[in-house]
Amino acid sequence: MENRDITACIILIGNEILSGRTQDKNLNFLAKQFTEMGIALAHARVIGDREEEIVATLREVQPKYTYIFTTGGIGPTHDDITTECVAKAFNVPVIRHPEALRRLQAHYGSPELLNEARLKMADVPEGCALVDNPVSAAPGYYMHNVFVLAGVPSIMQAMFGSIRPLLKGGQKMLSRTVSAYITEGVIAVALGQIQQANAEVEIGSYPFMKDGKLGTSLVVRGVDEAKIAAAAGAIESLLKHYTPDIFSGELA
Amino acid sequence: MENRDITACIILIGNEILSGRTQDKNLNFLAKQFTEMGIALAHARVIGDREEEIVATLREVQPKYTYIFTTGGIGPTHDDITTECVAKAFNVPVIRHPEALRRLQAHYGSPELLNEARLKMADVPEGCALVDNPVSAAPGYYMHNVFVLAGVPSIMQAMFGSIRPLLKGGQKMLSRTVSAYITEGVIAVALGQIQQANAEVEIGSYPFMKDGKLGTSLVVRGVDEAKIAAAAGAIESLLKHYTPDIFSGELA
Repeated sequence: MENRDITACIILIGNEILSGRTQDKNLNFLAKQFTEMGIALAHARVIGDREEEIVATLREVQPKYTYIFTTGGIGPTHDDITTECVAKAFNVPVIRHPEALRRLQAHYGSPELLNEARLKMADVPEGCALVDNPVSAAPGYYMHNVFVLAGVPSIMQAMFGSIRPLLKGGQKMLSRTVSAYITEGVIAVALGQIQQANAEVEIGSYPFMKDGKLGTSLVVRGVDEAKIAAAAGAIESLLKHYTPDIFSGELA
Repeated sequence: MENRDITACIILIGNEILSGRTQDKNLNFLAKQFTEMGIALAHARVIGDREEEIVATLREVQPKYTYIFTTGGIGPTHDDITTECVAKAFNVPVIRHPEALRRLQAHYGSPELLNEARLKMADVPEGCALVDNPVSAAPGYYMHNVFVLAGVPSIMQAMFGSIRPLLKGGQKMLSRTVSAYITEGVIAVALGQIQQANAEVEIGSYPFMKDGKLGTSLVVRGVDEAKIAAAAGAIESLLKHYTPDIFSGELA
């Protein structure tokens, strides 16, 4: 379709997501940010805290996308192994970063509180640049195009705020949503024809249920406002054959 | 660690997840079911509605895991392309399935309602077996070890209920959670020693914030109840050095 030259891939690292203990919220947060910035999130993975798989995944995806973002595994405990894996993926050693150490010292105050485990959070792959952590000091970092962020959503979001100005956005994806209490199957054939006639936008069809009634949201996405308006207009005309009640935006 | 011979991989298919429009709920639902059943969810991916990537992903993961589950892309609209992709991945044609057709006819009643688009939901890869859809009739299906389910959570969950008896579970993963208002960094070193001394269980450490207070939940997972109890006991003894208030289960 349109030119989406800036792409992203997210790697969620953590046994707690795979076991069902934790409902991930980081993917959706990042996905929305990317959409705003004109970055196309092309791919995401969830993998466990296993060194071999983390290293192999990083090596596989790193050359394929403009930006890679990992979440999880950079805390002080034994199950936090992301940093060793990133270093291994890039064939560099893990070093204690002086500026990261300074930040932890400032945050924890006494050497007693900044114990061996917490010092581990100053260890990063050699050659990386730090990512500020306004919440709890222990920084994230980035190594070439791989951004290594915390797994706790509030910290991950604060870290993302720190790096957002560094990221190059692309053509911003615009969208318009039209909804009605019509089931997908009623309009699917005509909708397919509208998609064919408007090949430069992407039309998504998403069924919903609200107040016990079935409906569909049609989302037109693209980079050209006029083309989006044309396709959305055609969809509205189609829907008007079935109902006078057409809503702008999501209903569910 | 322990023998986890039954594995699963989930492929979430849908541009709406990658764009941030939709917060996925299917991964967490399935993850919890698998944990109950002794199936180890080893890997998950989120990919868009793009034929080439869906086909390549299916071919890549199909031989690696006991079970593959896809969600999304089996509805009546033009952006529902999962079935064509599954057929292509297995090198079989798409056929109109007589029993699927019969179910749609029974559900929609009149031929006018069962239009061309809805008939598409009776089309499946040749050689697959149907998965019941108690919600809206249009079936899912499975082809060898690949289970193709709807993306709408209520329908996906109903379909999963239909196939659950067919799935072979493994050794059930048991867990015990202990929580306290202690930050991870305080206990991390000693916790790592407990993990080393209890290598047959997996100890996860998860920080949380509740009522403005920081705390940590320690999750001990494994297949042997006695070994889990031993590790959890050691963790409780550790925590008691710092606080009398130790909670069984999650606090956040």
